[in-house]
Amino acid sequence: MQGSACGLRAVDGGNLTGFIPLKTGNMHCAIQKAEVLDGAHLLQLLWHDGAESLYPAVWLRDNCQCSDCYLDSAKARKLLIEALDVNIGIKGLTTDGEKVYIIWPDEHCSEFEADWLKKRCFSQQARAKLQRELFLPEHQYWGSDLQLPTLDFEDVLKNDEHAYTWLSSLKKVGIVRLTGASDKRGEVLKLGKRIGFLYLTFYGHTWQVQDKIDANNVAYTTGKLSFHTDYPALHHPPGVQLLHCIKQTVTGGDTEIVDGFNVCQKLKEKNPRAFQILCSTFVDFTDIGVDYCDFSVQSKHKIIERKKKQIVRVAGGKVPEKVQSHDILVSDMADDTEHEVIQTKYETERKEEKRLDDKGQVVRINFNNATRDTVFDVPVERVQPFYAALKEFVDLMNSKEFKFTFKMNPGDVITFDNWRLLHGRQSYEAGTEIRRHLEGAYADWDVVASRLRILRQSIKDGR
Amino acid sequence: MQGSACGLRAVDGGNLTGFIPLKTGNMHCAIQKAEVLDGAHLLQLLWHDGAESLYPAVWLRDNCQCSDCYLDSAKARKLLIEALDVNIGIKGLTTDGEKVYIIWPDEHCSEFEADWLKKRCFSQQARAKLQRELFLPEHQYWGSDLQLPTLDFEDVLKNDEHAYTWLSSLKKVGIVRLTGASDKRGEVLKLGKRIGFLYLTFYGHTWQVQDKIDANNVAYTTGKLSFHTDYPALHHPPGVQLLHCIKQTVTGGDTEIVDGFNVCQKLKEKNPRAFQILCSTFVDFTDIGVDYCDFSVQSKHKIIERKKKQIVRVAGGKVPEKVQSHDILVSDMADDTEHEVIQTKYETERKEEKRLDDKGQVVRINFNNATRDTVFDVPVERVQPFYAALKEFVDLMNSKEFKFTFKMNPGDVITFDNWRLLHGRQSYEAGTEIRRHLEGAYADWDVVASRLRILRQSIKDGR
Repeated sequence: MQGSACGLRAVDGGNLTGFIPLKTGNMHCAIQKAEVLDGAHLLQLLWHDGAESLYPAVWLRDNCQCSDCYLDSAKARKLLIEALDVNIGIKGLTTDGEKVYIIWPDEHCSEFEADWLKKRCFSQQARAKLQRELFLPEHQYWGSDLQLPTLDFEDVLKNDEHAYTWLSSLKKVGIVRLTGASDKRGEVLKLGKRIGFLYLTFYGHTWQVQDKIDANNVAYTTGKLSFHTDYPALHHPPGVQLLHCIKQTVTGGDTEIVDGFNVCQKLKEKNPRAFQILCSTFVDFTDIGVDYCDFSVQSKHKIIERKKKQIVRVAGGKVPEKVQSHDILVSDMADDTEHEVIQTKYETERKEEKRLDDKGQVVRINFNNATRDTVFDVPVERVQPFYAALKEFVDLMNSKEFKFTFKMNPGDVITFDNWRLLHGRQSYEAGTEIRRHLEGAYADWDVVASRLRILRQSIKDGR
Repeated sequence: MQGSACGLRAVDGGNLTGFIPLKTGNMHCAIQKAEVLDGAHLLQLLWHDGAESLYPAVWLRDNCQCSDCYLDSAKARKLLIEALDVNIGIKGLTTDGEKVYIIWPDEHCSEFEADWLKKRCFSQQARAKLQRELFLPEHQYWGSDLQLPTLDFEDVLKNDEHAYTWLSSLKKVGIVRLTGASDKRGEVLKLGKRIGFLYLTFYGHTWQVQDKIDANNVAYTTGKLSFHTDYPALHHPPGVQLLHCIKQTVTGGDTEIVDGFNVCQKLKEKNPRAFQILCSTFVDFTDIGVDYCDFSVQSKHKIIERKKKQIVRVAGGKVPEKVQSHDILVSDMADDTEHEVIQTKYETERKEEKRLDDKGQVVRINFNNATRDTVFDVPVERVQPFYAALKEFVDLMNSKEFKFTFKMNPGDVITFDNWRLLHGRQSYEAGTEIRRHLEGAYADWDVVASRLRILRQSIKDGR
């Protein structure tokens, strides 16, 4: 559409206005008025429900949806940054209530659907809503009172609504038990295919948890496993774990789980110093051996890993008049500092402080005492306080308030968030024959979340 | 060894001392004297070369190497945190110069090899040395003057020294070209097996870069690809990329690469505000389509991702007398704040400020303009400054100083650090037949680094 006649009137920036009568029944996504502000660098839409939205001109140009600028088959941008004028202004503007039509200074034309724009409104509220849709961040914390979500294995494989329930509960609660699988190997592979594919590690596509001679992992013994997350020796530990019970011992071998995020919240209240130490100390992990192939793995993690804090610093720059009263200025911006307090600074030097609830939240626990390295990269005076903090954390996990114990039966599969839950098992007696056998596998959270989005969409579409 | 007689004299904490004559030829790792400090909570070793090392008692107990506490077949800790007394002191101590023998209050005995202890000395210098060994962090930056490291494909597959050179150059320089592969598919799979295994994504185990109808990715067209890293739509983007040229077009299709870390350094000098914006703004990426299976992927990344800063805060706690003069107190401790300035605070309230060179360094670039989402989760007034910053970054990449251009020939494989390099290709003419064909694959940095450690060890051992 480069240089084509868009049939729009070109007007000086700041004087462009389009009032249109309401044609659609959808008040929410119907545009009542479109105008340019800030020397044509900003588009303001007034919606029929009275709400207002602002869109920077450069963002509109960057996201032109025409076939020169956007490859629809890939749902991807073709326009290069090299070709983008970051100081661009809007030359011509009109709207019919359902679409906005823009002419750029080089006569390139863009059009945007009202609902597409509404969804991408830059207000703090609209952005927060869209982010929740994209990332489903809701967590329901639990303790020893957990009602273990349970679904039928075959239902999950065959029925999209059951599969959606499975993965959305896995995201929200952190664990789902599937019952009715066979007592043969291969069931976790089926779940992997249902999701998309599994996450291969040095322990293989799937792995067998049973008592082994010369075990290359403490899990492959009959010993007690205290609460741990799997594989912190990788910098990107498996997000989701699948564990299928093939054979169970009569005495012992019970499974213990705990909601690590819930325990962290308690630790932060009860012993903020211990919490802070575990959030800030990089711990070395190691795993050396042979399985799928030979390996010598090293990583560094904070045992409690938090989301980066975000900060607002509207420093210096001139803020367009219309923007000053807008809610966006007290919202968060992306930053990687870790301050608890969000400081906003307008051109008037007015300062505001605001806490943002969802920042600094725990996003991953990285802890396996077996693979915590003998190498410890901290100054000597930090060593004992670290152990004291870790012990506080472990003691909380083991407390009656948080620990949930149950026994897996042959045909049960537990699927759980390995970034959030810690799990363990009680010891059991060794024998000449294998008394207990689980088959396990991992999946990546991005792959699981992808399947979850697709299932949600297909259910919404009634497919 | 629980409760066994270790043959050691038990003495009150603080009075334990063992002077021993030099027996070994290795002055460096021979212990001259061992004593306990700080009420038996700290072991001090005096080495025959005059150096001193300190080890907290709790760390020694935690890392007891006996078969009750450590599973040698798995090279992993059996001792649970639940069983560790974090306030433990040393009850009995002796040394023969090559080993240290400790009795704990419950009569448990531990012994540690001198060289094992020396390697794990908590001094800043010793820790830094060991971390360099474990993680090989050295980078050699380059610009348009790059001498592209080149090795023979078959040599790398068959010879460990060549394979070691390959992977250590890949880590250090960020790219290695292998020549002499066939012009058939399957060569990147061979490299994957040489490393261990490949990193599977929604584009398959390996993928074919060629002009495709209804391309699900901009790479599968004949268009120019400006500088990008692959797959920022994943939260854990592929660390290493392998690209094998099977067929090359006569005109166009040249490969362009740039050292992203070097460009970042320049950007930080030249335009610190742009650098700061790209280090602190979370950008949404998206990838929706069908390939290995259907996918709907969403992620958030800072385009320039830096290492967490580490900070020293020796606040409040009593520092043992002997420790105060030790170099560890001005060293870094693990923290996740992003301050440029490292503040140390002793019990005396003395304050010191120190910059640490290697903190805040760039660890990953996450940027693909094609999959940068139309959704942009920042306040409206942050939008234009972000684009201006991004344009500065892209303009620097494209400058003559940094860009390196070359053409791949059939049988060439480039292997490169996808967290550090940005790559692109020049456009070429479409035709009725396929004129250009690359086969690609990914590997995870943890898997590559594991192979690198193993190769280094096997060469060192002369195997």
